[in-house]
Amino acid sequence: MRGIRYTARVEYDGTDFAGFQVQSGARTVQGELEAGLARLNGGARLRVDGAGRTDAGVHASDQVIAFTYPGRLSAEELGRALDALLPADVTVRALRQVPASFHPRHAARYREYRYTVWNGPRSPLRERFALGVRVPLDTAAMAEAASALVGRHDFTAFGAPVGPSPLRTVHGIRVGRRGSEVTIDVTADAFLRGMVRRIVAVLLEVGRGNLKTESVAQAVEARGPALDGAAAPAKGLSLRRVVLGRRFGAKPWEPGEQDATDNGEHQQR
Amino acid sequence: MRGIRYTARVEYDGTDFAGFQVQSGARTVQGELEAGLARLNGGARLRVDGAGRTDAGVHASDQVIAFTYPGRLSAEELGRALDALLPADVTVRALRQVPASFHPRHAARYREYRYTVWNGPRSPLRERFALGVRVPLDTAAMAEAASALVGRHDFTAFGAPVGPSPLRTVHGIRVGRRGSEVTIDVTADAFLRGMVRRIVAVLLEVGRGNLKTESVAQAVEARGPALDGAAAPAKGLSLRRVVLGRRFGAKPWEPGEQDATDNGEHQQR
Repeated sequence: MRGIRYTARVEYDGTDFAGFQVQSGARTVQGELEAGLARLNGGARLRVDGAGRTDAGVHASDQVIAFTYPGRLSAEELGRALDALLPADVTVRALRQVPASFHPRHAARYREYRYTVWNGPRSPLRERFALGVRVPLDTAAMAEAASALVGRHDFTAFGAPVGPSPLRTVHGIRVGRRGSEVTIDVTADAFLRGMVRRIVAVLLEVGRGNLKTESVAQAVEARGPALDGAAAPAKGLSLRRVVLGRRFGAKPWEPGEQDATDNGEHQQR
Repeated sequence: MRGIRYTARVEYDGTDFAGFQVQSGARTVQGELEAGLARLNGGARLRVDGAGRTDAGVHASDQVIAFTYPGRLSAEELGRALDALLPADVTVRALRQVPASFHPRHAARYREYRYTVWNGPRSPLRERFALGVRVPLDTAAMAEAASALVGRHDFTAFGAPVGPSPLRTVHGIRVGRRGSEVTIDVTADAFLRGMVRRIVAVLLEVGRGNLKTESVAQAVEARGPALDGAAAPAKGLSLRRVVLGRRFGAKPWEPGEQDATDNGEHQQR
């Protein structure tokens, strides 16, 4: 397609979206971005690609998108004009030109999701963006159980593969607590569909004392749906960071430079 | 009315409420509380009183309510049962018995509201509970301007009186900044209708450099609507604290004890 290829960072409050990916008859982040771009393109739709297909209700503080724009606005003008046309619950920033072959899903070296738990008395204000859990969670046990997931594994137990392979590399899982707020940060090269929320569901059962820490390692090995496929609710989940391969960083484009991890297995969740 | 008088603390996410006070055909906090209590009272409605009538979209982390309950549940049972019947965006806690004459509006010695501003690039996640302001705010000028409002004044310029008098005592206004988050905390014995949001609208004009700090003192003296009655949007406002008179504190009820500030002028905003 003719035009200039751009990337941008996107933040959204997922509450009122049916997810990132366009679906007919539903309000989606991709749909709003494409509608905004169409208005800057004489009404003709332009396709927007994202680094991660977040599910309905999932938020993002730093999603990465890309699109090809045939018009005459400069990058700065385009960034400001598009943002001005978007609804209050989604914003674009840091729009810049990239090579024509750039695709955020393939360019992403790893993604970081944060799941937030409000582990205290019921709090409507805290629980708009967090799952409320009343029983005190044993976060040390959760962290210990999570360590069994770090590394390259067949993650069939925690989700359906988006591409041909269920293998993913989890770089790390951090379980933190600050007062009543418990956060679970999961970093991986890519995720199976629903993988973070299913990992969180299992770790919460460990934190509640209903599952032993060893059972997480056993669940990975079993390769059947852990906890019958139970997933933590979407509202507590946010895509926090998408780190691009070095060749898509601040440095100029170097044709032929190969990123070691850009092996075609990167899949969105 | 027969029964035992109870007070409780209430937190709510005001986003999907048409305010605290019952209105026919609208979803209100008082309405949800009264509906929950009716289910614990054989279907018969019980009236709930609040310390502050927050407007549509305004939140509360610590509203105070009271009601008279003729049933047989203990305070602990009643608190848990009522909370279990409430929707996800409102909660009750710390329910306890009070004297039959207790009314939260009269018992409140002072109220504290917090207005939150996200003074940075557009951020849908931050701006669900904050007003986004893009131009850098001069918070030192805002604090200086706010000092003209502290003390006992005729606040006609900042709202309509709820009772007979437009006199209110503002105990303090704190303007704070932490990174891009600017908070404006206003403490007063009571507030006129819309008073905090109108004060904030004026202070923001000072912070933007559109109004001089002296103009706030002049606005109070003029006693006409400041900024033509402009008010900052509801979503940034939260009722954070209601401090009750000493006689309603942890100490037992002392009949005849008179709270110096409980002079009948306390009005909700």
